[in-house]
Amino acid sequence: FSTTSGETVCATLFPGDGIGPEIAESVKQVFNVAGVPIEWEEHYVGTEVDPRTESFLTWESLESVRRNKVGLKGPMATPIGKGHRSLNLTLRKELGLYANVRPCNSLPGYKTRYDDVNLVTIRENTEGEYSGLEHQVVRGVVESLKIITRQASLRVAEYAFHYAKTNGRERVSAIHKANIMRKTDGLFLKCCREVAEKYPEIAYEEVIIDNCCMTLVKNPSLFDVLVMPNLYGDIISDLCAGLIGGLGLTPSCNIGEGGICLAEAVHGSAPDIAGKNLANPTALLLSAVMMLRHLQFNNQADRIHNAILQTISEGKFRTADLGGKASTSDFTKAVCDHI
Amino acid sequence: FSTTSGETVCATLFPGDGIGPEIAESVKQVFNVAGVPIEWEEHYVGTEVDPRTESFLTWESLESVRRNKVGLKGPMATPIGKGHRSLNLTLRKELGLYANVRPCNSLPGYKTRYDDVNLVTIRENTEGEYSGLEHQVVRGVVESLKIITRQASLRVAEYAFHYAKTNGRERVSAIHKANIMRKTDGLFLKCCREVAEKYPEIAYEEVIIDNCCMTLVKNPSLFDVLVMPNLYGDIISDLCAGLIGGLGLTPSCNIGEGGICLAEAVHGSAPDIAGKNLANPTALLLSAVMMLRHLQFNNQADRIHNAILQTISEGKFRTADLGGKASTSDFTKAVCDHI
Ligand SMILES: CC(C)[C@H](C(=O)O)[C@@H](O)C(=O)O
Ligand SMILES: CC(C)[C@H](C(=O)O)[C@@H](O)C(=O)O
Repeated sequence: FSTTSGETVCATLFPGDGIGPEIAESVKQVFNVAGVPIEWEEHYVGTEVDPRTESFLTWESLESVRRNKVGLKGPMATPIGKGHRSLNLTLRKELGLYANVRPCNSLPGYKTRYDDVNLVTIRENTEGEYSGLEHQVVRGVVESLKIITRQASLRVAEYAFHYAKTNGRERVSAIHKANIMRKTDGLFLKCCREVAEKYPEIAYEEVIIDNCCMTLVKNPSLFDVLVMPNLYGDIISDLCAGLIGGLGLTPSCNIGEGGICLAEAVHGSAPDIAGKNLANPTALLLSAVMMLRHLQFNNQADRIHNAILQTISEGKFRTADLGGKASTSDFTKAVCDHI
Repeated sequence: FSTTSGETVCATLFPGDGIGPEIAESVKQVFNVAGVPIEWEEHYVGTEVDPRTESFLTWESLESVRRNKVGLKGPMATPIGKGHRSLNLTLRKELGLYANVRPCNSLPGYKTRYDDVNLVTIRENTEGEYSGLEHQVVRGVVESLKIITRQASLRVAEYAFHYAKTNGRERVSAIHKANIMRKTDGLFLKCCREVAEKYPEIAYEEVIIDNCCMTLVKNPSLFDVLVMPNLYGDIISDLCAGLIGGLGLTPSCNIGEGGICLAEAVHGSAPDIAGKNLANPTALLLSAVMMLRHLQFNNQADRIHNAILQTISEGKFRTADLGGKASTSDFTKAVCDHI
């Protein structure tokens, strides 16, 4: 992705459900103050079914991301009722979002049991245990299929090594359970090894998932970039978020086919506090910063990032989830003031 | 299981590979000093293939556990070469070891980032992602089958609630990913709910695995008894072990068909330090204590347990894995002195 300086970029915005609109508002304000040359194309993603996609996501919303190749999404609740796929899964599928990237860094000034987390999880986002293929064999016996393909594994491995190289990272750890799932996780590892050979400057190791989780809680600083199949990524990325304080503080972005980058707050839509000006916009703001870096708006990204870190570190304007009393707008204003 | 007081009980002992014999020796010494009325039936489980089981485990070894219904096993390495199932898996299968139980408690005196861990993981140990059913669909596309059955799910759920009730625990959390694997994990949850209804005095909740791992690293004291399918159990039990210092400090026991109880140290065989009198026998000792409680030798169990905790807490005789300089025999002697 490249932009000529001075140009305005069009980006898709899905505020999402629940607290989504409030925290999206926070991003818009902060971007304004920082003078980010982005024009938002905002789409409502909600509870009306679009007959063309048979989902709660309109065709226009998807086209907007495909056209802009860059976007930001808030939390989306799963529509109620049987048989509905979650909107998150639908988006991953429709936009071919093959890698979910989550940098996880201890926030200076926000104390948890860990102050030494500085890693990135890269999750394969399209297959594995999420195939949706399940059936009952006989009464009382059900099975699910986990699918691993060479194509998707190579693609996410390639992304992980490329990310490591272009982000000054030194090591990629492939997480697996190939001692048990020899064929599926075995293929995943084989693909990682193939890609590793093309990046001799990046160290490569393989870590069994149970051991990985134990090591993460004992000594997370042993890890740098982690790449893994879908379900392990789901588990480990949330575990890592927990190390630094939770999903409310963890940014994420999804890399999709054709160079799409859809940044995303991975926390829930928190319907209980929606509309009350109580939500913490940090995860969405940090995700928006990831989007800016993808666009190579590094100057604005740095300024906004630092302003967020300073606001959290000072601790005067913490939202309730972090034990404070600030409102969403108090926090947003503090970030804007720091820019 | 019940024993008349004064009676001697016969128990199987598999010292295992690597450091196994040394730490098993430690258990024997400690049991002697505590006057535990157990006679060990020791079996070599090693690298010779028994043609009757086609495994590295002899028929006599299995028969010994089946007859005694109680045993203790050290670490076992997986035989090298393609196609060999790990000895651990073979044991689970042959003995129908359907539940792996791991109490996880912060050790007073051994400092980690957590001092508030007091939970028990109960893992379904026979099916799920460990079916071994995998194949290549076409070149570059492989699949694994996860199998969940009503029978195995009910059995482990029943065990978990029974355990909670008889061990003064208040809540059982079923861990799952039924929002994605609706049929397999859905069946697991259905079985847990059925059993929960029979135990109105035990609270019951369902927690999605990613959320569970995040909560565990933020606030493990929110959990009491956790029950889950095989792979989630593998992951979460190791994560929990990490919270209190690692597998070298975590006891475990397996409950099998016909009332078998096979206690087990779940750490590796550490071939690098084998035979050097450097290994930490704590996990095997604590596992042996679980075996004693199963036999209702509660007096001896308490005395040994306290002696282990005191030795660790004093910190004078720590083995290298805990940052100390004590040998296996130094540590063992200290435990014996405390009895
Ligand atoms: C909501 C759920 C379907 C989703 C997942 O399992 O991928 C979530 O946990 C995530 O990580 O985005
Ligand atoms: C060694 C391996 C096959 C085993 C498992 O995955 O069950 C181990 O991790 C365990 O937890 O006992």
